Amino acid sequence: MSVLDDLVTDLSRVPGLGRKSALRMAFYFLKADPVFLQRLGEGIAHLRERLKRCPRCGNYTERDLCEICTDASRDRRTLCVVEQVQDLLNLQRTGEYRGLYHVLHGVLAPLDGVGPTELGLEALVKRIPAEGIEEVILATNPTLEGDTTALYIRRLLGPQVKVTRLASGLPVGGDLEYADRLTIARSLQGRLAMES
Amino acid sequence: MSVLDDLVTDLSRVPGLGRKSALRMAFYFLKADPVFLQRLGEGIAHLRERLKRCPRCGNYTERDLCEICTDASRDRRTLCVVEQVQDLLNLQRTGEYRGLYHVLHGVLAPLDGVGPTELGLEALVKRIPAEGIEEVILATNPTLEGDTTALYIRRLLGPQVKVTRLASGLPVGGDLEYADRLTIARSLQGRLAMES
Repeated sequence: MSVLDDLVTDLSRVPGLGRKSALRMAFYFLKADPVFLQRLGEGIAHLRERLKRCPRCGNYTERDLCEICTDASRDRRTLCVVEQVQDLLNLQRTGEYRGLYHVLHGVLAPLDGVGPTELGLEALVKRIPAEGIEEVILATNPTLEGDTTALYIRRLLGPQVKVTRLASGLPVGGDLEYADRLTIARSLQGRLAMES
Repeated sequence: MSVLDDLVTDLSRVPGLGRKSALRMAFYFLKADPVFLQRLGEGIAHLRERLKRCPRCGNYTERDLCEICTDASRDRRTLCVVEQVQDLLNLQRTGEYRGLYHVLHGVLAPLDGVGPTELGLEALVKRIPAEGIEEVILATNPTLEGDTTALYIRRLLGPQVKVTRLASGLPVGGDLEYADRLTIARSLQGRLAMES
């Protein structure tokens, strides 16, 4: 049954899906509603035509500019730099942030050929004066690559703008006993005064 | 981004995929090769048109009859009855079985409205004399529903043909310590003589 084999092989290419899960999924499709299958299939086939990157911030959008860049109610003086669109969605979910975003779609990785040009850092730098940004929040991950990228961008932006970095420390609900050494060190470095 | 939301909602409907896995998958698709996406999407959308049930045995096929029913090298006197096509594939993988199959696409479940008619048991009964079948192996699962279905089919077939049931017992590599009571009981009932 080459139609089935081909589908299972393609599904197995999706990260997180092994051959067994792919097979189980294909057999589910074989009994699923044809209208549902048609819609799902077209959703996958045409996803990349229908969703483009916002030319201003890199977020995904179906229009010319994304819904965050065109939202007049947002604070246009603050810009949050993230590695990927998933991070933007997670920040949005907190409801804590009301400013704009800039999605890098990656981190600096010289060994993989990803330098400042590949990340489009020039466009990021230009946004600051062009849009009158007053604070840039660097929200790359607290990993070696994320920290390196944040440091590089910090230097690139120079003194023209206030630059901050997301706090690193113990996760809420976390436990000192199980936290790793680096996280505890960061939480000490970033300790906050408690009002009496 | 309703295109993305719609896709994630549809993917979440697939058993085994939660909303988080669906989101991760959608973001993978957003960076995947468009040719791959086109092929995968069409594979899903057209799966049910391209794969039909074999009118003789119920296996999936792209042709009029499935590749097992048309395979002249198979033993045409033995018929193995399974609940679903996945079971057929698993039996095929063992390389132990060279006969024909009959796929029920379910088990008897009167409470869910699945009776002998819904399972097409009449067609199964007719196959025995029509094809000169000499042995029917009942390979439904060793579950309450599978056992009930096997018992029902056994009575339906009557004395016209030899009927056998897959052996039930300890899994190979399994451990008596961790086996459940029913499995141990079955392995006792089905114990085999050892040659001296």
